[in-house]
Amino acid sequence: MTYKIKITDRKGNCKQMKIVIIGGVAAGASAATKARRTNENAQIVLLEQGEYVSFANCGLPYYVGGTIPKRDSLLVVREELFRKRYNIDVRTLSQVTKINRSKKTVTVLDKRNNTTYEESYDKLIIATGARPFVLPFLKDCKNSYTCFTLYDVDKIKEAFSAAPVKKAVVIGAGYIGMELAEQLNLLGVDCTIVELKSSILPQFDKEMTNPVVYTLKEKGVDVKTGVSVVDADVIDGVAKRLKLSNGEEIECDVVFQTAGVIPNVELAREAGLEVNRGIVVNNKMQTSDPDIYAAGDAVEVKSIITGKNVWIPLAGPANKQGRVAGCNAAGGNLEFKGVVGSSIIKVFDWALAKVGLSETECKDQGLNYNVTIVHPLHHAGYYPGGKQLTIKLIFDSTTGRIYGAQVIGKEGVDKRADVIATAIYAGLTVFDLENLDLVYAPPFSSAKDPVIMAGMTASNIIRGEVKNILPDRVFEHLDNPDYIILDVRTPEEYEFGHIKGAVNIPVDELRNRLSELPKDKKIIVYCGVGFRSYHGCLILKANGFDCLNMSGGWTSWRMYYPDMVE
Amino acid sequence: MTYKIKITDRKGNCKQMKIVIIGGVAAGASAATKARRTNENAQIVLLEQGEYVSFANCGLPYYVGGTIPKRDSLLVVREELFRKRYNIDVRTLSQVTKINRSKKTVTVLDKRNNTTYEESYDKLIIATGARPFVLPFLKDCKNSYTCFTLYDVDKIKEAFSAAPVKKAVVIGAGYIGMELAEQLNLLGVDCTIVELKSSILPQFDKEMTNPVVYTLKEKGVDVKTGVSVVDADVIDGVAKRLKLSNGEEIECDVVFQTAGVIPNVELAREAGLEVNRGIVVNNKMQTSDPDIYAAGDAVEVKSIITGKNVWIPLAGPANKQGRVAGCNAAGGNLEFKGVVGSSIIKVFDWALAKVGLSETECKDQGLNYNVTIVHPLHHAGYYPGGKQLTIKLIFDSTTGRIYGAQVIGKEGVDKRADVIATAIYAGLTVFDLENLDLVYAPPFSSAKDPVIMAGMTASNIIRGEVKNILPDRVFEHLDNPDYIILDVRTPEEYEFGHIKGAVNIPVDELRNRLSELPKDKKIIVYCGVGFRSYHGCLILKANGFDCLNMSGGWTSWRMYYPDMVE
Repeated sequence: MTYKIKITDRKGNCKQMKIVIIGGVAAGASAATKARRTNENAQIVLLEQGEYVSFANCGLPYYVGGTIPKRDSLLVVREELFRKRYNIDVRTLSQVTKINRSKKTVTVLDKRNNTTYEESYDKLIIATGARPFVLPFLKDCKNSYTCFTLYDVDKIKEAFSAAPVKKAVVIGAGYIGMELAEQLNLLGVDCTIVELKSSILPQFDKEMTNPVVYTLKEKGVDVKTGVSVVDADVIDGVAKRLKLSNGEEIECDVVFQTAGVIPNVELAREAGLEVNRGIVVNNKMQTSDPDIYAAGDAVEVKSIITGKNVWIPLAGPANKQGRVAGCNAAGGNLEFKGVVGSSIIKVFDWALAKVGLSETECKDQGLNYNVTIVHPLHHAGYYPGGKQLTIKLIFDSTTGRIYGAQVIGKEGVDKRADVIATAIYAGLTVFDLENLDLVYAPPFSSAKDPVIMAGMTASNIIRGEVKNILPDRVFEHLDNPDYIILDVRTPEEYEFGHIKGAVNIPVDELRNRLSELPKDKKIIVYCGVGFRSYHGCLILKANGFDCLNMSGGWTSWRMYYPDMVE
Repeated sequence: MTYKIKITDRKGNCKQMKIVIIGGVAAGASAATKARRTNENAQIVLLEQGEYVSFANCGLPYYVGGTIPKRDSLLVVREELFRKRYNIDVRTLSQVTKINRSKKTVTVLDKRNNTTYEESYDKLIIATGARPFVLPFLKDCKNSYTCFTLYDVDKIKEAFSAAPVKKAVVIGAGYIGMELAEQLNLLGVDCTIVELKSSILPQFDKEMTNPVVYTLKEKGVDVKTGVSVVDADVIDGVAKRLKLSNGEEIECDVVFQTAGVIPNVELAREAGLEVNRGIVVNNKMQTSDPDIYAAGDAVEVKSIITGKNVWIPLAGPANKQGRVAGCNAAGGNLEFKGVVGSSIIKVFDWALAKVGLSETECKDQGLNYNVTIVHPLHHAGYYPGGKQLTIKLIFDSTTGRIYGAQVIGKEGVDKRADVIATAIYAGLTVFDLENLDLVYAPPFSSAKDPVIMAGMTASNIIRGEVKNILPDRVFEHLDNPDYIILDVRTPEEYEFGHIKGAVNIPVDELRNRLSELPKDKKIIVYCGVGFRSYHGCLILKANGFDCLNMSGGWTSWRMYYPDMVE
């Protein structure tokens, strides 16, 4: 690795290298500090249009709700430290309005005095990030907020301390929207979430979020999905009432707009750089101009799973990309290896994690996938305090390559998601998952960890030991005379709730009651979580029956159809 | 995968396949149920010398201490269920005394009536496990216990209810010994641990266990390391006083023997099967006799890291091996892919995890390794409740391949260990660790997760960005005139405690005070956790100094040398 690049002027004389970075939050700040660590002698200029560099974006909702009590905590690395420790020329309130590639300069608007100047660069790093999507009719409303910068949350805090807020509407049930809704609820604010898509956290498959909807309702958060906000009654610049696409109207004291973000690619596009949805970069984070790098929410990068470019604006990849861009711009040689697409959110006592692709995404991409759902406890059942997890594992039907997983539960969710994220990164298959050697002691896991359990059930499916079926496919066959549904739980469990029309033969009686079952129909077998039914299927199969195991059993069914009464 | 094997008798007639399994706990129970799930028609006989099948070994210490209140919880799968659900012929108190390979029978001692019979097999599975090591002079003492079976803990519980136990000695500070010591302490018992090796939990490198020793002492557990129990005063069959190798004597009401286990390989060895330390098997869990499989604590298996056979008696691998053996014996086709060597233990509020090799093991094997130590918080620093973790990552000096890691802390330890275990399984390098795409939200992690941080510091070392040195090597240079030690923390931190003889120049003043440092000496740089000193090294290096970064800084130093007063 070479740290010193010989930059020569037009006459061939050596000069000090100059790196200019546009944007000073996650990717930009990482790029700046890594550039300095890579090259002690470079001149580094960090231009940030806002008032602060390197603040903790992801902490903003928690500061609104008071979970993070001190505003100071959000300032990760102060301006002063950038100067003193990193010898970086930090300029806040400095907005780049143009990139002049031929001259190798950027045009900077100094917002303090509204003057404009040009700054030259040898290497430029674009870390312009993204901006929140804002509904046009709410754009100028005094009581409408985004939650994207320190400036935003300062305004929110001010509003909350100026007058009591009784009723809030959060538009968009993505990560920030859900975190805000939780925090507003903790503040005692009556909160409604409105989501355009058919479920909250639409990155997830719907059934994985249903248990959380239940909790939200229990806590008093009103959840409206499949509707959009189409208009507002605005009086004196204050949105008093929002009008929904279904005709409903909601009153509000404040509105939060968290319906996604838009990558800030305009500068790059105007400069003639290659831009799709995000700025296009190679694995060095270099744009189509070799002297210009880009990193963070404004770029698209390679998916490790599909090999295609994806735009996933998240802090983890942004920081790593910034580090790579900063290092390479300063003469180093790092590679960004792509993204798995890993994210997690806490909603009250729930954690929901997603790594790789959802089932919906696999379907959209036409992948040849299969799915297993397991519901094991997060640690050994005999050790007190075990909490049930749900893992939905999606994999290639033939090769077993892992496409993605969603994990929800109240404990140990992040661990299982990270293990699967690592497995996806490494290109492992479900046959590897069943063989993983994970740490085990009763307070932490089971001898067969939930991830291993998911790997085993997936591998059993591919090996042809058992055929599986998901609840939504079972639902389609409810009235199909070619199918029968067999509940192999105990009569007590069956009585407590079962799938409409299901026959009940407990698994332990199955061998002796085979004559009660038809050989000319497909038998869909289910139990509580899919384990007894798996064994039931093996007994049936050995006796010549055609059967399918419903993945995750009754527990899965209740996630898919929480409101169905049997 | 074929499930039905055609087993023929001597006349060539088809007959039902018969699988006999010796041992009915972790590996044996898994083998039996998987055999049934693989082959509905086989005859399966499960022979267990004890009273119970499939009990939760790993829960025993927690039952002794009352953390697991109910004895019933320890019975994972009951005998009755083996019969009803799995159609398995379970025979407890049935000890196999001989394997007759030529006749394909085993000789069984029925302990209920002390009679002996022969049982034939088509396929045999040896899951004889291990037994605790017992000191000869304590063998018959009424107040000396092992903690290995339900029978053991029944005796312990009986003793504790019969008379108050004031003073216990635990011999051996491995996993079971440490768990017992914790549980005894919770019961209010005055407890001394005696460990032959120089530190508790000797699977770990010593410095990683030092913080736990501090907690143990604080809780009132007396820890004696580097000494052995050499004799006992036994009066009326009761050990009253133990004599240690250092001349010390300790009184005791009860003694627990947890000084390791011995694999039960005698049956296999006498039958002429290939046995080293454990029974030798291939990746199908097949012994040197193709009709005999073996699994669990009695076997040795391939290390995924070194490719060599290792004997690692742990529940996780045992269960997976049993599943593979049971499947293959019944006509299926599964492969056991080897072990990483992953384990974890809770000791009071500490968790200590180890995956792969320790530094000591790497040294013993002559590997070309390097080490990085990091001490990040377990989640974002700006979100309340972050707890410091220590990760010691050991990797190949040249290729960056991961050899092992030890993680200690109070939260999030198991997650980081499992991520690295998965990375080791997949053959990843530290360059992959720095690129992992792990789930991040403030309550769960940081934008750069601790594992990623460890990967980055390790990668920086291999890339030659900075040279690193561990505290024990620094210690060797304390009085070496060719070295100087530079503390780049603030004067306040320096005053609070520093390495003897260290010069203090805060990192933010370093660029202006370079003239105070010699160019003809090696400069060892340290700070609080290794980050400021890393930056300090880069500044020094760029200015022509020869420097080394002390891995993990003062925090590491205090782990290596907790008792040193500066």
